[in-house]
Amino acid sequence: MRAAVLGGAGYIGGELVRLLVGHPHVQLATVTSTRLGGRRVDSVHPNLRGATDLTFTAPADLGRHDVVLVATPHLRDAAEMAGVLERAAVVIDLTADHRLTDPAAYVRHYGTEHPAPDLLGTFCRGLPESHREQLRTADRVSVPGCMATAAILALGPLVADGLVDGTLSVDARTGSSGSGATSGDAGRHAERAGTMRVFAPAGHRHAAEIEQALGHQVAMSATGVEAVRGVQVLCRAATRAPVTERDLRASYRRHYAAEPFVRVVARSRGLYRQPEPKILSGSNFCDVGFAALPELDIVVAIAALDNLMKGGAGNAVQCMNIRFGWPETSGLEFLGLHPV
Amino acid sequence: MRAAVLGGAGYIGGELVRLLVGHPHVQLATVTSTRLGGRRVDSVHPNLRGATDLTFTAPADLGRHDVVLVATPHLRDAAEMAGVLERAAVVIDLTADHRLTDPAAYVRHYGTEHPAPDLLGTFCRGLPESHREQLRTADRVSVPGCMATAAILALGPLVADGLVDGTLSVDARTGSSGSGATSGDAGRHAERAGTMRVFAPAGHRHAAEIEQALGHQVAMSATGVEAVRGVQVLCRAATRAPVTERDLRASYRRHYAAEPFVRVVARSRGLYRQPEPKILSGSNFCDVGFAALPELDIVVAIAALDNLMKGGAGNAVQCMNIRFGWPETSGLEFLGLHPV
Amino acid sequence: MRAAVLGGAGYIGGELVRLLVGHPHVQLATVTSTRLGGRRVDSVHPNLRGATDLTFTAPADLGRHDVVLVATPHLRDAAEMAGVLERAAVVIDLTADHRLTDPAAYVRHYGTEHPAPDLLGTFCRGLPESHREQLRTADRVSVPGCMATAAILALGPLVADGLVDGTLSVDARTGSSGSGATSGDAGRHAERAGTMRVFAPAGHRHAAEIEQALGHQVAMSATGVEAVRGVQVLCRAATRAPVTERDLRASYRRHYAAEPFVRVVARSRGLYRQPEPKILSGSNFCDVGFAALPELDIVVAIAALDNLMKGGAGNAVQCMNIRFGWPETSGLEFLGLHPV
Amino acid sequence: MRAAVLGGAGYIGGELVRLLVGHPHVQLATVTSTRLGGRRVDSVHPNLRGATDLTFTAPADLGRHDVVLVATPHLRDAAEMAGVLERAAVVIDLTADHRLTDPAAYVRHYGTEHPAPDLLGTFCRGLPESHREQLRTADRVSVPGCMATAAILALGPLVADGLVDGTLSVDARTGSSGSGATSGDAGRHAERAGTMRVFAPAGHRHAAEIEQALGHQVAMSATGVEAVRGVQVLCRAATRAPVTERDLRASYRRHYAAEPFVRVVARSRGLYRQPEPKILSGSNFCDVGFAALPELDIVVAIAALDNLMKGGAGNAVQCMNIRFGWPETSGLEFLGLHPV
Repeated sequence: MRAAVLGGAGYIGGELVRLLVGHPHVQLATVTSTRLGGRRVDSVHPNLRGATDLTFTAPADLGRHDVVLVATPHLRDAAEMAGVLERAAVVIDLTADHRLTDPAAYVRHYGTEHPAPDLLGTFCRGLPESHREQLRTADRVSVPGCMATAAILALGPLVADGLVDGTLSVDARTGSSGSGATSGDAGRHAERAGTMRVFAPAGHRHAAEIEQALGHQVAMSATGVEAVRGVQVLCRAATRAPVTERDLRASYRRHYAAEPFVRVVARSRGLYRQPEPKILSGSNFCDVGFAALPELDIVVAIAALDNLMKGGAGNAVQCMNIRFGWPETSGLEFLGLHPV
Repeated sequence: MRAAVLGGAGYIGGELVRLLVGHPHVQLATVTSTRLGGRRVDSVHPNLRGATDLTFTAPADLGRHDVVLVATPHLRDAAEMAGVLERAAVVIDLTADHRLTDPAAYVRHYGTEHPAPDLLGTFCRGLPESHREQLRTADRVSVPGCMATAAILALGPLVADGLVDGTLSVDARTGSSGSGATSGDAGRHAERAGTMRVFAPAGHRHAAEIEQALGHQVAMSATGVEAVRGVQVLCRAATRAPVTERDLRASYRRHYAAEPFVRVVARSRGLYRQPEPKILSGSNFCDVGFAALPELDIVVAIAALDNLMKGGAGNAVQCMNIRFGWPETSGLEFLGLHPV
Repeated sequence: MRAAVLGGAGYIGGELVRLLVGHPHVQLATVTSTRLGGRRVDSVHPNLRGATDLTFTAPADLGRHDVVLVATPHLRDAAEMAGVLERAAVVIDLTADHRLTDPAAYVRHYGTEHPAPDLLGTFCRGLPESHREQLRTADRVSVPGCMATAAILALGPLVADGLVDGTLSVDARTGSSGSGATSGDAGRHAERAGTMRVFAPAGHRHAAEIEQALGHQVAMSATGVEAVRGVQVLCRAATRAPVTERDLRASYRRHYAAEPFVRVVARSRGLYRQPEPKILSGSNFCDVGFAALPELDIVVAIAALDNLMKGGAGNAVQCMNIRFGWPETSGLEFLGLHPV
Repeated sequence: MRAAVLGGAGYIGGELVRLLVGHPHVQLATVTSTRLGGRRVDSVHPNLRGATDLTFTAPADLGRHDVVLVATPHLRDAAEMAGVLERAAVVIDLTADHRLTDPAAYVRHYGTEHPAPDLLGTFCRGLPESHREQLRTADRVSVPGCMATAAILALGPLVADGLVDGTLSVDARTGSSGSGATSGDAGRHAERAGTMRVFAPAGHRHAAEIEQALGHQVAMSATGVEAVRGVQVLCRAATRAPVTERDLRASYRRHYAAEPFVRVVARSRGLYRQPEPKILSGSNFCDVGFAALPELDIVVAIAALDNLMKGGAGNAVQCMNIRFGWPETSGLEFLGLHPV
């Protein structure tokens, strides 16, 4: 099974390369980069030294592959996407280009017409926890945004079970790798270190994906905190009727009992009582937790993940595993570290 | 003017010593410590090397002072507080002991009877922005909790101007110094570093202070993030009528125009658009920002401060300055650093 | 193959559990803890949630195993070690107890008599790069200290090839996990975060191991810097004759060409030109680099590793793999992350 | 006294602005920036909000001032420096342009001819601890590099007292602000965070300044570690005769007894036993410590400072205070924070 990573010099792209180099069923044949054609992949991803001798290919030289994973940063034009679709039996898209299915919503949230609106409806949502069956046969997959994945996994069971109502509140906190390998002044260490930066106080594009997935309005904020990897969402919702923590635990357990990469974490003892991205770096887990404020008829849902893994590359590989009928955890067995 | 710091080995206590050593109108005469009697103060606060030769006094040896600032960590019994009140013309209390005025609320939030409930009503709220006039003559001052101060300053103008309604949502993020100089396993660097730890997913004692100050119910959470100093609150509230960002700016400006330590920060350009505690370390500022989600009838209020300064020792000194008629900024002129 | 981890609640112990749970040839049967008998292992190592249902066993209940890995923190008495040796065919000791072979050196560096000096000579050095052949048949293995491993791998080729002479200088920098899961006040996050703490300005116990391995005097210092995992050593040595960087590269390449876990990293371009522990967290690599100051007749040797992996648990598993004839990289395939 | 800061958008420049805004004897009249002419100074230095309404002036519009502090990043041509010299009675230069007095040394270390070699000899070394008398009348001052200042203050007494001999070893560790406000890919948070990056394994330009000041050859390395502010040097030197720690303490105390900004820190108890930059952020102290390895005839000297303060802007202000006859600590009273 020959795979290509399109846009392998970025952080999501590098993570894809790491996962595919170690994947038992995939031969990583091609990694492209617009800027770095001809240079060794390990020259920008030093963790891969000794693990691969691949060099970057220019995107124009991309040949035919069984699966192409798209990790380029920006919206590409229709011709470029058509070119990719021609060259691959299966396309797994990690950009934001095909996350929204409704062209009007795309315009509203991205401020521009989609260059190929007909494509929008042809991609399957790349979230195994909600679209596993469709993914088994999907030739086009769009992986959700990292914060959207966390929020959908945190709130999804409560919505599905009819426990909550009204506008959902999502406060996301994120590490710096989410800004990518070309962040500007705001990403300079001296400015970014140790900060709590509310870069999105009133709305974020990922809110559109959450609304699309859950069917509720979302009031979202996003704050950059000190971490390289990691996303955490703390969500609040009003309950339709009194809800106890026992009810919440039952809902989450029922929805996630068989999920290989979702763990329900809500404990009353120990140091790690609720989900924390710290211990998830490099793993594909999304930990989900909860709490109730019964006197206020409010519930709190929390989720944490590694934005480059379950929030990106790891989730894409999970989708690929499902699509090709491999064990769902292939190449994704790393447990995460403690302490770290 | 002779001052004493009761409980000077802790982080708030050390900050009080730093401020009073450099204060133009105060002679810091005594610093107590239960554990460290006889040792030099700079042996635990190394930033004070060369600035003071004071040694710790046993609390039992506390003599008469013009002002005593209480920074011991735990609830003390009635006799101990009576002893302090006898020895000082003015007491500024930085513990949580006298923050709530209602004994019943104290029981509800602290889970135990107050040892001297009659005292509760005798302390003035130590928040100049709301109690400046009372502070001019108050002999007993209770300084609010760090997160409460941030939330009250963030939401106060909106409540006062009748812009918001219903339950207030407060999502607090805090550095590790808030856990004090005797934190346990959870404060060990290897466990605490780089984390996003929701240690209070559904409620926090500071919520009681916010409710007392603002007269609204509060849904509060608190998360430890990577920082030593710093508290940030991101608050949400439902609007009673449509509110624009222009309305919000006007409200904040009007309330805080004359405040020496509150800055309104809500910009559309630059790296530091909303309040960030990072640049406030060591300063007494509380920066306040805001945003509107008009389509959801929700407003966002944000505040940041240094929990040991405006969230504790700095605020106490500001109250002391007011009480004794000194310039309100005496000893509090440090602007904070950039970058840091 | 049944294995036990003695002292599994600490950081090295937890890392051993993580590696053995995922090891293809080992069944982890027992994990002991003095304090936590009966509690789940994942209650202190949250990364293991979902990966193991093991609970801690009291040390006294340790039964017979094919291999016991000892990760308790402190020097135990002779009887305790005898008990362990009785219960295991193979003992891999990660404590400092058997790292020095000479009882007199032990007294000199640890300040006390060894409780069972006859044992000292019976342990093989647990460093595959220098003792691989002996390890194939060793029933008792003593894993070196993390900084010693880094320094020996950095300087070993230069000593072996006769390129350097005289006292070796070793400046070690280390993350906080090296202080273990029971560090005191100095390990509190507010004190430890962002520091550069020269806790050993003039000598460190690991210097004794380096001297024993390399046969040169060592002037060592150790500094705690901001990191949880990671050790880096920057070493200097005087050259016996003029040495170029080409000579150095040739020496390192010849010594480490066949080593699965040592990479020679000394580049003139890119962001990661010399070894950095940052990208090694969770991996078993020791990266080794170098530079020459020919006008001063000095060479610089640099090494980086994850102190809990190649500096401890990973190295122990590598030794175990060699001893039992398994592929040397079994269970140690994780490449490390970028960025992280 | 009217002052100008040339190059006020950078980190050193911003720190100069902060210090001069609060200086009792200076009126900060002009702050220049090539890129940001017309924009508010607090738009890039958010800590100055509320403290100054200054806007950036284009460098060409610099008028006549009593003192000009030059904090531009790069070597400027001879005409530009001549222009500055014309416009100011006193010039304090914080660039690297005039740190070396010997044009040949300049070529050797900077790889190019100095554009105005005649100027090199006309600047006084801006280090009060060694050049205080000359500074009282110097109209041209060149402030040393941050690592050079630390190393000179650490090693100077030992050299002056004839205690050490031969090549001096200097191992510098530095925070990210030393790379300035325009650092490239290597300064991106995701790459820089938590690292130990030996960016100068075998030599650094600051070594030339140390050699010039101390008259010994210097083997220097420099490592970036996780911090924004802060430089620490760990130096080693061979002793000419047996030296005890008591001898070292006596030497340092004698040299630095009257220095307002050098503290001798070398303790056997407590958490902060040797100099650490962590507690010096924003202060003008250089803490100096030491240790002896008598069995190896080696001594260790350690120094820590805030690279933007005693390593740059603070030191410049100290020089200015001396030059104009003001109290040497004017505007430099901040003690630093603990914890932070």
